[in-house]
Amino acid sequence: MSLLLCLDSSTPCGSVALCRDGQVLAEVTLDVSGKTHSDYLLRYTDFLLNEAGLTLSAVDGFGVVAGPGSFTGLRVGLATVQGLALSTQRPVYPVSSLDVVAFANGSSDLPVMAVIDARKREVYAARYVWQHALPCRCGDERVVSPTVLIEELTEKTLFVGNGVVSYREQFDAETHEHVVVSADLNLVPKAGAVGVLLARSGAKIPPVDPFHLHPVYIRPSDAELHHNGRKA
Amino acid sequence: MSLLLCLDSSTPCGSVALCRDGQVLAEVTLDVSGKTHSDYLLRYTDFLLNEAGLTLSAVDGFGVVAGPGSFTGLRVGLATVQGLALSTQRPVYPVSSLDVVAFANGSSDLPVMAVIDARKREVYAARYVWQHALPCRCGDERVVSPTVLIEELTEKTLFVGNGVVSYREQFDAETHEHVVVSADLNLVPKAGAVGVLLARSGAKIPPVDPFHLHPVYIRPSDAELHHNGRKA
Repeated sequence: MSLLLCLDSSTPCGSVALCRDGQVLAEVTLDVSGKTHSDYLLRYTDFLLNEAGLTLSAVDGFGVVAGPGSFTGLRVGLATVQGLALSTQRPVYPVSSLDVVAFANGSSDLPVMAVIDARKREVYAARYVWQHALPCRCGDERVVSPTVLIEELTEKTLFVGNGVVSYREQFDAETHEHVVVSADLNLVPKAGAVGVLLARSGAKIPPVDPFHLHPVYIRPSDAELHHNGRKA
Repeated sequence: MSLLLCLDSSTPCGSVALCRDGQVLAEVTLDVSGKTHSDYLLRYTDFLLNEAGLTLSAVDGFGVVAGPGSFTGLRVGLATVQGLALSTQRPVYPVSSLDVVAFANGSSDLPVMAVIDARKREVYAARYVWQHALPCRCGDERVVSPTVLIEELTEKTLFVGNGVVSYREQFDAETHEHVVVSADLNLVPKAGAVGVLLARSGAKIPPVDPFHLHPVYIRPSDAELHHNGRKA
């Protein structure tokens, strides 16, 4: 599993990367606000393979962010990887957007709370403690309001992820003694970090049959809510 | 200064990024081991502008890593930015590779030592303390052996940068009580981080006349040593 092609389309900042043995060979990231992820994922895949002087047949496996995040973005990313995996017969490794953001912000002595903007005044959130050079998730991923998340804090916690920027007033380190905020970098999961995390995690993140690759939404989509409301 | 085009070619991993108001719009990174930085800098600049639907005339300024790092890489990066800046009459902001790596690894309660592989069993190194959401450099950038750097430590220090990976045996957290090592990400300065750091730093990093843009080598190049040796 030395050469991994990794994709992320869980936030408005999409990315594609080629990683070899836990190092990022090449990566493209693009803020697609106002555009669509489906427009560039395969094009960037092609671009990176060309730049690295490789072809798709050299890829040993695929990493992809399965959520939580943008519902449509996730669908597009997973569908793209399904197509690539089925045609090349290579394994797919889905990872959590929150795990990637926790990892990308580096080890910390403090517990880490990864928060990704979920719109509707909420964030996707998960808590981590660093152990053996990896962030170890404590409890489930969930969708929650920043206010509730902060009220629950009992100790100093490092907040990472674009939720901190979207809800800067709520996650204010000046106001809340338990809140520590990271720098404005590594805010979103990036494809390069997916590859490095997969290499570092080894067997802890197993491959998934492409036919059983599902997005992790955490909360029901508006379409589902609408559908269920009509049935009721 | 809302739209910045940033370049880094100080290590074997080169990158180009477009940043707007302290956010990375688009970025390409490529491990150019065995290739040359001059091959892709302008090509990626063109690619990113196209992807973002912009032209060079929209760029308000240029950020570039001025060193320390690969001598030839720095020359190529600075020459490229000089050309772009002179033709567009836009300001150039040179930044330190070590400052960018310290910044990209996020805020820390510990003092931070940024170390970049300088070959010849040495690293470029600088020490930082985080203040007001920025890493504040304490003392000069220098070139030094990992062993000497560790011997000088008097307190627990977070080591960041690709020097940690190149000299993993020396920077071993198991052996040295004062050494804390970050995750294997954000090891090199990247163009996106240059743009975010410039936005965050504001007037603290002033523009430089393109004619007076010089690489920061720290130690003399082999060519200089050879030349001086012959003169002596």
